[in-house]
Amino acid sequence: MDTTIEQCLEQVRQTVPLIHNITNYVTVNDCANILLACGGSPIMADDEEEAAQITAVCGGLNINIGTLNKRTIASMFLAGRKANELGHPAVLDPVGAGASDLRTDTARRLLEEIRFAVVRGNISEMKTLAAGAGTTKGVDADVADRVTEENLDQAVAFAKEFASRYNTVAAISGALDIVADGERAYVIRNGHPVMAQITGSGCMLTAMTAAYVTANREHPLEAAAAAFCVMGISGERAYERMRRENGGNASFRTYLIDEVYKMDGQVLMREAKYEVR
Amino acid sequence: MDTTIEQCLEQVRQTVPLIHNITNYVTVNDCANILLACGGSPIMADDEEEAAQITAVCGGLNINIGTLNKRTIASMFLAGRKANELGHPAVLDPVGAGASDLRTDTARRLLEEIRFAVVRGNISEMKTLAAGAGTTKGVDADVADRVTEENLDQAVAFAKEFASRYNTVAAISGALDIVADGERAYVIRNGHPVMAQITGSGCMLTAMTAAYVTANREHPLEAAAAAFCVMGISGERAYERMRRENGGNASFRTYLIDEVYKMDGQVLMREAKYEVR
Amino acid sequence: MDTTIEQCLEQVRQTVPLIHNITNYVTVNDCANILLACGGSPIMADDEEEAAQITAVCGGLNINIGTLNKRTIASMFLAGRKANELGHPAVLDPVGAGASDLRTDTARRLLEEIRFAVVRGNISEMKTLAAGAGTTKGVDADVADRVTEENLDQAVAFAKEFASRYNTVAAISGALDIVADGERAYVIRNGHPVMAQITGSGCMLTAMTAAYVTANREHPLEAAAAAFCVMGISGERAYERMRRENGGNASFRTYLIDEVYKMDGQVLMREAKYEVR
Repeated sequence: MDTTIEQCLEQVRQTVPLIHNITNYVTVNDCANILLACGGSPIMADDEEEAAQITAVCGGLNINIGTLNKRTIASMFLAGRKANELGHPAVLDPVGAGASDLRTDTARRLLEEIRFAVVRGNISEMKTLAAGAGTTKGVDADVADRVTEENLDQAVAFAKEFASRYNTVAAISGALDIVADGERAYVIRNGHPVMAQITGSGCMLTAMTAAYVTANREHPLEAAAAAFCVMGISGERAYERMRRENGGNASFRTYLIDEVYKMDGQVLMREAKYEVR
Repeated sequence: MDTTIEQCLEQVRQTVPLIHNITNYVTVNDCANILLACGGSPIMADDEEEAAQITAVCGGLNINIGTLNKRTIASMFLAGRKANELGHPAVLDPVGAGASDLRTDTARRLLEEIRFAVVRGNISEMKTLAAGAGTTKGVDADVADRVTEENLDQAVAFAKEFASRYNTVAAISGALDIVADGERAYVIRNGHPVMAQITGSGCMLTAMTAAYVTANREHPLEAAAAAFCVMGISGERAYERMRRENGGNASFRTYLIDEVYKMDGQVLMREAKYEVR
Repeated sequence: MDTTIEQCLEQVRQTVPLIHNITNYVTVNDCANILLACGGSPIMADDEEEAAQITAVCGGLNINIGTLNKRTIASMFLAGRKANELGHPAVLDPVGAGASDLRTDTARRLLEEIRFAVVRGNISEMKTLAAGAGTTKGVDADVADRVTEENLDQAVAFAKEFASRYNTVAAISGALDIVADGERAYVIRNGHPVMAQITGSGCMLTAMTAAYVTANREHPLEAAAAAFCVMGISGERAYERMRRENGGNASFRTYLIDEVYKMDGQVLMREAKYEVR
């Protein structure tokens, strides 16, 4: 390992990566604020007439297919191709892949035509994408939808295979997170269940991952793992504050972004709980 | 009465209703977070290519016409028809009906073509819809725009007539709330004026109502009344917290969702102020 | 000077200006809440079929070009022309002018075809607009991108020239704010750097400026300066609260809107730091 998750964080803070986001209108404000919180800078632009040009002035690209439509899908492809052409890291969040044909098909086409540095989804979304590849080595149907200590070996194997097949980092969030390239997998045990009781935990994590891989282009695996640790630790700390102040999920959302804003290398190194397999 | 508002709340918590929302981009994040806060689960999707399919995988549908456009209007009809076909409860929020022909006409057409379990609006929006029905029994022009103790009888009669005519529950929010079917009306005296000083109080209430009627399909009247009581009590408690912490309307928004998150049956039964007429 | 910034604030509180916003989906919720916080009332509507009609029922118009697209651009022109026709104040926020041709061209075309009471941007956006006017008196290339005490004279001259040329108030936000018509310039030294670490500080300021100029139509210069002072002071106070409560940028966003909500004439007069040049 030639970088640490702490170094990945410092790189984001020092280089202030500018990220082009084509993302859903539900959590877009949270994505912008968490990009600022982690040390990056956001631009949102989804019209075909400016998508590629905005990609070009940024350092990285975040494509999130929630609330997609024909117009924005076209922009996703234009931006993705431009990012690939310029060698900018691109990150995909296949929100809701499996819930509608439009989402499943769009996510698969994106994955076929665009090279992504990281694909960040939950296990069901990732399995949907893998199943659609139509290869005989398709997703293991025995990988249960939830990653647990019991099926962790299978899930790690699935993540590595996904990463290999698509030449990407497979970043699967859940109670246990798995961030893998074809060779190595980080298994991360940070986070708190209340993260699932706000909208946007996943979208924010993907946006932050885009900032991390853009600031650490030579180390996409470590960068994505670092972003996951930052998010998980922030979730734990935000939950403590929510509990202390007798708040609810809306307070938690605010605190979560706050904790990302306040995160530093020392807290990250002390509280990150991960192993490499 | 064969259910209570407390039982309605418990049903939402136990069944976690999945709600398809086609809603405006102003308050969409708040709607998603309040659905999670109350115990439901949100999906937002507004493209014609996936609208009906997303409706089908959900348990209920929330149509809100704020920031509507041609593309999303088409999706509203596709989703509404699918919900009717499958027997899923659908809820309508006619935001701004009366402010533009596009909104008035769209809300009226929706009300004519789709059967809604509940229509949730303010008194002006509801009167606009009723006036457009073109019947000789049209809205009583004497119903003043604000519901007060003085004109309450007329407003209750209007709500019951609206409910009868459209085979729905008329849920009218204001300083005094009225939730009525053709026979009975809940008059609810919870809430706080500061709720009108944030954007989205109405949209959030409609979204939560969708979760309540989806989890309590046999009791749309009680379910909608329960959602109104939860919102009103949460507004009162959020105001107390805002005052105590010397906050403003943005803090109030956070606290409002927090209080919905923390609400339980005991608080609801103790603090709900309603009568049935 | 025949009005004061304190009187401008009181006018907003007393007249509750209704503002039509065609704005980006990133910060739209914040814009709505800050309009309510300052004493105004927001409507968001961006479809061609209702844009002009919504403008007509409002008192003022706020056009913000972030996340613009073909559909919303058409609505911006329809709304802008209607506002001019009716004599309603219109305000322009050229978000990202200079970042893409679509944004630069749209902002310039708007500025040519619509008469704006105020144009609110950062110095780079304003220079981009001025450079495009194609006159020989174009923007002074010596005006550095950041306004500092050192280049303040040049920046003030630029703002006055911009205001003269477009018959508007040039409202340039930054560490030092400049709000100028062709004759006089307010230089404002309120605010805090953390305002740049949330999304929407600029958009919210523009929305609030629209409310201020709508409530003070005879005094657009003082009204815009008052809105800038309110925002800057609120930023300072929100930062103090964030520091005291060990929060981050998400808490700051909430506190910023809260402070606008709590602002009164006394605080404004006591804490505003401006000079007129």
